[in-house]
Amino acid sequence: MSKAIVVIPGDGIGEEITAAAVAVLRRADHKHSLGLVFETHQAGGAALDLYGLPLPERTVAAARQADAILLGAVGGPKWDAVQPELRPEKAILGLRKALGLYANLRPIRVPASLSEYSPLKPEIVSDIDILIVRELTGGIYFGDHCEATVIDGVEKAWDIEVYSVPEVSRIVALACQAATLRRGRVVSVDKANVLASSRLWRRTAEQAAEKYAGVTLSHMYVDNCAMQLALAPKNFDVIVTSNLFGDILSDEAAVLGGSIGMMPSASLGEGPGLYEPIHGSAPDIAGKGIANPVGAILSAAMLLRHSLTAETAAVSIERAVDKVLADGYRTADLYRPGLTEVSTEDMARLIERNI
Amino acid sequence: MSKAIVVIPGDGIGEEITAAAVAVLRRADHKHSLGLVFETHQAGGAALDLYGLPLPERTVAAARQADAILLGAVGGPKWDAVQPELRPEKAILGLRKALGLYANLRPIRVPASLSEYSPLKPEIVSDIDILIVRELTGGIYFGDHCEATVIDGVEKAWDIEVYSVPEVSRIVALACQAATLRRGRVVSVDKANVLASSRLWRRTAEQAAEKYAGVTLSHMYVDNCAMQLALAPKNFDVIVTSNLFGDILSDEAAVLGGSIGMMPSASLGEGPGLYEPIHGSAPDIAGKGIANPVGAILSAAMLLRHSLTAETAAVSIERAVDKVLADGYRTADLYRPGLTEVSTEDMARLIERNI
Ligand SMILES: CC(C)[C@H](C(=O)O)[C@@H](O)C(=O)O
Ligand SMILES: CC(C)[C@H](C(=O)O)[C@@H](O)C(=O)O
Repeated sequence: MSKAIVVIPGDGIGEEITAAAVAVLRRADHKHSLGLVFETHQAGGAALDLYGLPLPERTVAAARQADAILLGAVGGPKWDAVQPELRPEKAILGLRKALGLYANLRPIRVPASLSEYSPLKPEIVSDIDILIVRELTGGIYFGDHCEATVIDGVEKAWDIEVYSVPEVSRIVALACQAATLRRGRVVSVDKANVLASSRLWRRTAEQAAEKYAGVTLSHMYVDNCAMQLALAPKNFDVIVTSNLFGDILSDEAAVLGGSIGMMPSASLGEGPGLYEPIHGSAPDIAGKGIANPVGAILSAAMLLRHSLTAETAAVSIERAVDKVLADGYRTADLYRPGLTEVSTEDMARLIERNI
Repeated sequence: MSKAIVVIPGDGIGEEITAAAVAVLRRADHKHSLGLVFETHQAGGAALDLYGLPLPERTVAAARQADAILLGAVGGPKWDAVQPELRPEKAILGLRKALGLYANLRPIRVPASLSEYSPLKPEIVSDIDILIVRELTGGIYFGDHCEATVIDGVEKAWDIEVYSVPEVSRIVALACQAATLRRGRVVSVDKANVLASSRLWRRTAEQAAEKYAGVTLSHMYVDNCAMQLALAPKNFDVIVTSNLFGDILSDEAAVLGGSIGMMPSASLGEGPGLYEPIHGSAPDIAGKGIANPVGAILSAAMLLRHSLTAETAAVSIERAVDKVLADGYRTADLYRPGLTEVSTEDMARLIERNI
């Protein structure tokens, strides 16, 4: 039985890093007989240039048919001035919506070999192991909005933050489920002292968590969470939060964890999952062969785990990454004297060899 | 000519720390003949217990008449279960709205004697000097909201993020004005790749900044800003942003800067300004005489600077604080072996003595 992986390189370094991740996946396939079949499709600025649309219908159709999607990164200054509806980011938002990818999983782990890269003091950052679960198809990202309207002679624009009970229930349930396989602690983050949508979130989270006997749920305001992530990240196990708060907090947490070039993510829903590194398209270094492919490669490992239930193959990739890093190999972004600098391709090849 | 300062202790440690700040202000008054007159009023949980309302009309009326307001902190678990309209936080939001306090100024500076308290590595945190300018009377804090409504059989709640051109113009102008007295760089933070209100914010900021020839304005997405604050806080001069983003980013920045107990803030508008430390009411240590009064004392210095144009007196307080800290005196929150631990009152007395 073959498994169809749709690869969407996107823009900037997306091409290079997805190529590296595909090479690693092929190697894992060779070892573990996964039956992977790859198909490349366009989205983002690249698609806009080719087809006049950031998310062509053929890409959506292929993604819907796939077993899983591997995405590079989209966007870049080249498309900064295009109208809102054509922005490269619309491809990401469109895919999330079209595939019903309501849960974004961002594991933040810092292997010993990488803790030196964190801006935090070593004693604060060592042994971080956080899973951020971000709601991904609701909230202010998808509520009604208005670009400009004149009220009482004054120009205004607005966006609606909106959540429903079922939306909150299912994401909190997913976070609780994940916590049962971890340390059993879920922190739900909101701004319930100000927002009505947060108060609905909080009361719904309480109910949804009741079914998970081994899980303790607590609540934290988003401003406090932004502080606690920097002060005592080790205290967190699973964080569950809204689309907007998750966007901000997961990026803060990623950077505190060390190198953002290493961080993977998974977006899950009813259908195929989408996997992408959290870093951007980095147009300034695109095509130079120096981009760090590890975020994409670890995303590929998540793809095997969550969409193909190929846990052994996933772990073999993660172990290979740890080994290559422990052996002192680094792409340019993380190079320090005393270590060995390698290209994007070489990094992939080293990881392949360790699988 | 006397100057009326309305003191609102609020809840928890609010009483102790405002008492300390008033003692320091009296000393500065004695030295610099400022003609200060103090009047105490209630707000928050304390007011709710006494009058059944978190923000009694007499407090608002007194604040309106004042030259400036010094506030401690409000809130606490005691009032966690009261209905949304009676929450202690409503006192803060109500005062901001009643006094038109549209600009929240949060300076984040780390004196050498305090950099050890930062969770960040010393080389990243040393010499931070950031001013965060947060819009304080608009956005999702004051847009329409709905606690619960049933649409197509599903319960929903919503809040509206809304900004007008004049609201954005005046806060960006204030940030640019502040930047002219600093390093001339303003970063406007938004989520213009997703939100319509952010796109209005961005285009309005461009226009508002044009009048300030010596100031360079750039834009950053909020998720990226959450990262950059942790990676390279030294790169920031002035940050200007919306109410909600400012809430999150200013707390993140405060904690990165070291001890949150030391951080002051000023809220400014057309009328009297309101000054408060950024830490909360810390009910767990209230009444023990161990709270750190420095955040409140530095807020009092900002009060002298911004509302009473008493720059010399303000600087004399700031210098006294630096001296006492450099001499190794610390309240319990910052005590380390080798330093001298002092009470809330003692800390105030030491600072008074150095004015
Ligand atoms: C590109 C942008 C729309 C997107 C988001 O805000 O969700 C990105 O920041 C992310 O976190 O995946
Ligand atoms: C208490 C709360 C309503 C308030 C806010 O969110 O504005 C606080 O967090 C602050 O930053 O002053």
